[in-house]
Amino acid sequence: MIRINENYLKLEASYLFSEIAKRVASFQDENPDREIIKLGIGDVTRALPPVCLKAFHRAVDEMGKDASFHGYGPEQGYPFLREKIAAIDFQTRGAEIEADEIFVSDGAKCDTGNIQELFAQDVTIALPDPVYPVYLDTNVMAGRTGEYEDGRYNGVVYLEGTWENGFVPALPEQPVDLIYLCFPNNPTGATIGKDQLQVWVDYARDNRAIILYDAAYEAFIRDDTLPHSIYEVPGAREVAIEFRSFSKTAGFTGTRCAYTVVPKSCRAWSADGTSHFLNQLWHRRHTTKFNGVSYPVQRAAEAVYTEEGRAQTTALVDYYLRNAGLILMEITALGFDCIGGKNAPYIWVKGDTDSWRLFNLLLKGAGVVCTPGAGFGRCGQGYIRFSAFNHFEKVQTALARIRQVLER
Amino acid sequence: MIRINENYLKLEASYLFSEIAKRVASFQDENPDREIIKLGIGDVTRALPPVCLKAFHRAVDEMGKDASFHGYGPEQGYPFLREKIAAIDFQTRGAEIEADEIFVSDGAKCDTGNIQELFAQDVTIALPDPVYPVYLDTNVMAGRTGEYEDGRYNGVVYLEGTWENGFVPALPEQPVDLIYLCFPNNPTGATIGKDQLQVWVDYARDNRAIILYDAAYEAFIRDDTLPHSIYEVPGAREVAIEFRSFSKTAGFTGTRCAYTVVPKSCRAWSADGTSHFLNQLWHRRHTTKFNGVSYPVQRAAEAVYTEEGRAQTTALVDYYLRNAGLILMEITALGFDCIGGKNAPYIWVKGDTDSWRLFNLLLKGAGVVCTPGAGFGRCGQGYIRFSAFNHFEKVQTALARIRQVLER
Repeated sequence: MIRINENYLKLEASYLFSEIAKRVASFQDENPDREIIKLGIGDVTRALPPVCLKAFHRAVDEMGKDASFHGYGPEQGYPFLREKIAAIDFQTRGAEIEADEIFVSDGAKCDTGNIQELFAQDVTIALPDPVYPVYLDTNVMAGRTGEYEDGRYNGVVYLEGTWENGFVPALPEQPVDLIYLCFPNNPTGATIGKDQLQVWVDYARDNRAIILYDAAYEAFIRDDTLPHSIYEVPGAREVAIEFRSFSKTAGFTGTRCAYTVVPKSCRAWSADGTSHFLNQLWHRRHTTKFNGVSYPVQRAAEAVYTEEGRAQTTALVDYYLRNAGLILMEITALGFDCIGGKNAPYIWVKGDTDSWRLFNLLLKGAGVVCTPGAGFGRCGQGYIRFSAFNHFEKVQTALARIRQVLER
Repeated sequence: MIRINENYLKLEASYLFSEIAKRVASFQDENPDREIIKLGIGDVTRALPPVCLKAFHRAVDEMGKDASFHGYGPEQGYPFLREKIAAIDFQTRGAEIEADEIFVSDGAKCDTGNIQELFAQDVTIALPDPVYPVYLDTNVMAGRTGEYEDGRYNGVVYLEGTWENGFVPALPEQPVDLIYLCFPNNPTGATIGKDQLQVWVDYARDNRAIILYDAAYEAFIRDDTLPHSIYEVPGAREVAIEFRSFSKTAGFTGTRCAYTVVPKSCRAWSADGTSHFLNQLWHRRHTTKFNGVSYPVQRAAEAVYTEEGRAQTTALVDYYLRNAGLILMEITALGFDCIGGKNAPYIWVKGDTDSWRLFNLLLKGAGVVCTPGAGFGRCGQGYIRFSAFNHFEKVQTALARIRQVLER
């Protein structure tokens, strides 16, 4: 008799965004004429930059002729893309990253979900709370947690984000092996300074831990003092894996391209004390379980690194940052405490009620979808997240409706 | 101290195709003027069908305007594609498969690699020998095997393919839980009849086992008596998961689109005897660890299901089948026993020496790349695989060169 992976049974409820989609669909069914404005899920709404489109079309044309057709490419991505990523995203910032440390993939969700496979079953994981659910759920599925009790999984070390610490958690009090960090943060929009990040890198070096650094939102950083990459911090090459995506940088959520950086100096150990290079392990996983990103998509991503591409993606991100600034200003004016909204596309709002109640109030009262903070963990209870990914006019309309509901 | 997943250390040598690529690159370095002809890795060489190109371009254009832009899509794929797959690939053949049993992905390699996550760590797996390495390697990585000894992993039940059984293995003699089957077969090109497949389905039903049926090459079937899908066999809906790909059907190896069928009646059990629906478990995995296939790629795949698309993909597959027929004829004429080459793009050749020696002989003597059968398992020793994926003229040239080396 074939048995299932029973770790799946430990998973709580359904995946956050599916639950939101269900509630929104049911409200829309009951109110077919109501125009719902989505400031919930972090999905972009603006067209691909023209320079990406042009490269995308050109590459599709190549696929139409035998002479320029591309079949299987390197699983890790084409050198044309990996080399530009290394040079422009890292080396120009003083981060020593080489092309063979870049692994191109179809999404940071996949990569942050899959990376845990490289590590032993019984490593101790440290997760921020609130947190992007994928980090946690993929570890639950892999059996790296105990049962779910009082809103938390046994065996996980939660790094608490609070209003007081600005949602930049303190170091754990007990030893941990695998640490998930995300800055600019999803869901809170919090950012981290180089000095604060150095503390984490030093901790990882001292404790032979690995930091999984999700930098999917680095393109939103406008404050020059903030690090775009963990590799701007000395010592990080030995202890950190970084995740990046074209989703929010260039509007690729429906086009699908991302990458993971695994420095060649990053190591972990086997029980006998031998060290192993994570770059080689990830290479093995990537070549065995993945077959590369669509060639035309890689060409579209490459266009981001042209001068035109950089100007166009900066303008795209600026558009969303204007939305974020407006949301931050208006929600603050309504008397709510907020963080984020600067150097990040998310605004994290401190409510005075249960997150899902506030979610329902905004959905039913204003026809606006936000994301309930409680869906991101216990420390998110009482908060909601607004996303800046929508058209400016819709954001204005949403805020006007919210004012009517929440003015106090 | 962070420890690695030590199962990775059990993996033998490097991934087969990486090893071939290394040897070919080294030969090319030493012989820069030699034109190497690749009949090794199963990678297509012909342009995308015009109807797919047109749909691809149209969808890229949609991504260039806010009003028609697509962000995140459903992780399982857009209904427009899933519905056509269900109707045309299955229902027209009398296989009762619904759209919500289809999960669109970026590759059958990923899907066949990931599916094992749904099952318990200690299920007994049955793998054909010879076999596509991904099935085995992903189970090794997951810790579902013992150590590697004398060319095999302890704890795995090998289903032996031999010249005598035509590489359609007999049922296992001991109970197994998870059975990998692939027809038309990679690497041998063997096919399976409905009656033979019924034996496996009945076995799975009687033993509460699950069959993972890789049908990536079904488009090459021209014999009307052969099943394209395992669901053409009564009872399969309860015990089989099927994998399909656009890679070989429509030349999508560099474009990336595939799908997995998990019928809603397919179940597995938890230790307490409760049954669980695999469709729900895979849905959970897919939505948690994957973010959908690129929208323009899904539109390109959809075009395969138009009348034009079906004619064009049939012509594309016919082109490769003509190559296969020629290889089969010529290699047979050289006095070698072969199987495959009909209803399949692979020709499996029985040599009279070690596989890698024959590989080296053809590489160095004829400048032709094949795949050593030994790379697919112990039963592949002594065989080589030719792939029909190349231009007809190149196949002719390759065969002329091979004649000079192998004529006896």
